[in-house]
Amino acid sequence: MKIAVLQMNPRVGALALNAKTIIESAVSAQKSGVEILLTPQMALSGFPLGNLCYQQQFEKQLQEALQQLKTVRNITLLIGAPAIIDSKIFNAVYVLRDGEVLACHLKQYISDKSLFNENRDFTIGNKTTTFDINGTRLGILIAEEIEQIDLIENIKKENANAILCLDSMPYYLHSNDEKIDAIRKIANGMPILLSNAVGGQDDLAFAGSSFALNAQGEVTWRAPFCKEGLFELDWNQQSFSGRLSTLPEKVEEELYTVLVMALRDYVTKCGFKSVCLGLSGGLDSALVLAIAADAVGAKKCEVFLMPSQYTAELSNSAAIKMADGLGVKYTTIPISEIFDTFNKSLSQRFEGLPEDVTEENLQARIRGTLLMALSNKTGALLLTTGNKSEVAMGYATLYGDMNGGFAPIKDIFKTQAYAISRWINERAGREIIPVEIIERAPSAELRFNQTDQDSLPEYEVLDAMLSELMEHNASAEQLVSMGFNQDEVAKTVKLLRQAEYKRRQGAIGPKVSRCAFGVDWHQQICQQFKDTLT
Amino acid sequence: MKIAVLQMNPRVGALALNAKTIIESAVSAQKSGVEILLTPQMALSGFPLGNLCYQQQFEKQLQEALQQLKTVRNITLLIGAPAIIDSKIFNAVYVLRDGEVLACHLKQYISDKSLFNENRDFTIGNKTTTFDINGTRLGILIAEEIEQIDLIENIKKENANAILCLDSMPYYLHSNDEKIDAIRKIANGMPILLSNAVGGQDDLAFAGSSFALNAQGEVTWRAPFCKEGLFELDWNQQSFSGRLSTLPEKVEEELYTVLVMALRDYVTKCGFKSVCLGLSGGLDSALVLAIAADAVGAKKCEVFLMPSQYTAELSNSAAIKMADGLGVKYTTIPISEIFDTFNKSLSQRFEGLPEDVTEENLQARIRGTLLMALSNKTGALLLTTGNKSEVAMGYATLYGDMNGGFAPIKDIFKTQAYAISRWINERAGREIIPVEIIERAPSAELRFNQTDQDSLPEYEVLDAMLSELMEHNASAEQLVSMGFNQDEVAKTVKLLRQAEYKRRQGAIGPKVSRCAFGVDWHQQICQQFKDTLT
Repeated sequence: MKIAVLQMNPRVGALALNAKTIIESAVSAQKSGVEILLTPQMALSGFPLGNLCYQQQFEKQLQEALQQLKTVRNITLLIGAPAIIDSKIFNAVYVLRDGEVLACHLKQYISDKSLFNENRDFTIGNKTTTFDINGTRLGILIAEEIEQIDLIENIKKENANAILCLDSMPYYLHSNDEKIDAIRKIANGMPILLSNAVGGQDDLAFAGSSFALNAQGEVTWRAPFCKEGLFELDWNQQSFSGRLSTLPEKVEEELYTVLVMALRDYVTKCGFKSVCLGLSGGLDSALVLAIAADAVGAKKCEVFLMPSQYTAELSNSAAIKMADGLGVKYTTIPISEIFDTFNKSLSQRFEGLPEDVTEENLQARIRGTLLMALSNKTGALLLTTGNKSEVAMGYATLYGDMNGGFAPIKDIFKTQAYAISRWINERAGREIIPVEIIERAPSAELRFNQTDQDSLPEYEVLDAMLSELMEHNASAEQLVSMGFNQDEVAKTVKLLRQAEYKRRQGAIGPKVSRCAFGVDWHQQICQQFKDTLT
Repeated sequence: MKIAVLQMNPRVGALALNAKTIIESAVSAQKSGVEILLTPQMALSGFPLGNLCYQQQFEKQLQEALQQLKTVRNITLLIGAPAIIDSKIFNAVYVLRDGEVLACHLKQYISDKSLFNENRDFTIGNKTTTFDINGTRLGILIAEEIEQIDLIENIKKENANAILCLDSMPYYLHSNDEKIDAIRKIANGMPILLSNAVGGQDDLAFAGSSFALNAQGEVTWRAPFCKEGLFELDWNQQSFSGRLSTLPEKVEEELYTVLVMALRDYVTKCGFKSVCLGLSGGLDSALVLAIAADAVGAKKCEVFLMPSQYTAELSNSAAIKMADGLGVKYTTIPISEIFDTFNKSLSQRFEGLPEDVTEENLQARIRGTLLMALSNKTGALLLTTGNKSEVAMGYATLYGDMNGGFAPIKDIFKTQAYAISRWINERAGREIIPVEIIERAPSAELRFNQTDQDSLPEYEVLDAMLSELMEHNASAEQLVSMGFNQDEVAKTVKLLRQAEYKRRQGAIGPKVSRCAFGVDWHQQICQQFKDTLT
């Protein structure tokens, strides 16, 4: 029996459009003899939905979209969609064939670690769902349900031959392998086919790689990584089989692929025609430009160079070299005259007060304001270029270099930014990012001879500490016992807490790690917890 | 039997400090013959906790704080605190007497409408908890549990005489009355004593007004509104009784009291010494200054007046009149020279392109940058002055007038801002806010003869529509059927959706309505739901 997985990139809220995409795929699949079409979790509505699911017109359009899907003939459709029953909203799968609803599975288990506060929006179902087709009995699960041994056992008790799982797995590095490992431990001889979504959606990325496992837990089919499409496989009454798409070999390639997809989708789904950013001659903005040029095309990117008296000549020359190399339009706007005018205007109030971080921030805010003027005038989406190490430490100016609608590398540590930049050049066989940008010491260039390491630990050390603090909830004491320097630990813990107010106003960007700011990291701004070093 | 309620303002994460506050109150209560001391939900840890509860050092400090509480003698303590059992975290109440744990209630019910995604952080308990004291049996519930009829019935089955509920109710207008009504419907003869927290915590406010209901559902005791303290009452084996504090009579007084408390607590808890803002001569900044002067004192407020060629003379004179009237320091910094310098710097790139909203935003961003310079230089917290109607419509400049760490009136509609401003003057018996500010037509003053109603429906109409859209999930179609103008409905629905990206980067501010941006309103930025008018 032929089965097809629609590895779909749904548009949140676009019920009619999503229905159309599914119907076109279903018609095409049916023509090539496919018996069952699987979509991802919430394929019809997009995911996550937020308050949309309560909207009264939403329910009406949902019913209309389901009616549309019922017009499809001679193929069984498994449609991920909300089900609204007696004013209660469920995360559901409709099994449709020739206009009939053969079954409707209501998600029974919602992870308490869920990113989406599904408990707020959804009611929980209470029954096992299976359906029969061509002598095969198939059980249905949604997302985290596949990691619940009791739900799998319930399906087994109904003598099912295999399980179909409709998923939308928020990507993080190695998430696919971990999901497969988790299922293997509990599937206990049950073949499993899992359909995943693909694409970027606000601060989440879905990476595709839908897969099938046989009774021995081996991967017997895999759809491509980060690629939309309709992919076929076979069911021989015992196991699924089909083409095994390869996964990216290197971490750098995997992350880069996801970052490009996430940015492209944000631009496309929001309807922007182009992007812009400030190109400083430093690593982060160079990496973001490389990603942007790949995501939307160099001709749709524009950059400003905004030197001050503190800008090294290397910064300008390297930035221009990179823009020219990619064919990206650039304009140079020195900021010193604006800076002087601000200082003059503030001089009365600031009389007698020493220079401090105010003047550094002012430069960043002048640049941020110039970039927003470009964005407003041209309609280009402004990209902000901070990396995760900076975001963690608050090493950025709010309303300055933090300006922008999307932050492509906000979940990428500085050490990862270096590795990805090197990989980009390696893959291209040329310096997309001029090597002098990769090799110079990182600096914000807001005063003479400034480097990041005046204020922060070495990035190798910092990133290692942040990873322990964020992903393993380590305490300062534990970090010290791991061998990190006590002063650096104290400083890192303190800055991580203090920067919360900046992060809360920062742009969204794609989650690619297990613990991403804005998605998984929840802290009050006002809090007085002291993580003391003993 | 004397009972005391500690209507407490806990500091999130400050376990030792919160324990100290509770112990001091317990000792004082015990001396005056009190047998039972009630604290609010999560009094020991503060609330909400976010990721803090996972932190390894947090558990250690929690155990230390509990040990401290066990030193208290001759009084029974009901302590709201997290309980960490076998690495699982519960929302709990410890019943402590003379160093012994008499009982520990683990919250059994977590609302699916919860603001806090409690399901992410907390495990759910599974048993009813009662304890005996002086011949009385008391049941314990936490927060939303008191609205679950089955949990109340379970306590009744154990022959309890009354229920003690430890709560931390996020305030919204009329939330107290609604809570009482909800309990009345299901308490069915059971006397209830509920302790509430007080104070501002990030974007939430807790308004106190802890209360007791007798078997007939009548309020027989009430602690003061928005006031921290230790309040006593009596239990006569049949009902609670004590002093009935009054509630604010007018909506304006109620909202104003909460706004002042929320701002004061944000400033105090974050450790700011002063606040600053831009005083435009318009209503919103005037209202925010009046609130700030009350919250932290006029001497700790500072304002900038930043006129342009579009600023009416009335704006300057009214702003100065208000600042002088309150004794608030002000500095006037005209922005035209900075504006000209920006335009000159951008002229090459913008050559041939018409003037548009870019130039309007540029003015707002120059002002925002000047205010952040003042904030950086003095350490004052910058307040942003947007109201809910503006925030909803995106009628504000991101990185401009949206700059600031706290937004005191972000959940106050413009029509409410007028009413509260009038009430402030009425109460004071003088024009804290000059009447010309209240009576003039609202304008952003970013071009000649601009008024808000060039871009937006009349505020009475707009606010009514927004209330339906946000609090009742109304569709555009329903609004039209209610009699709203079709074009205005279409525009409002569209702007409300489009402004999501701005709101996501906006400052936090206190929730005072049933559906507040940032707390209750969850929308994807990228979404394509079309709420069509039929």
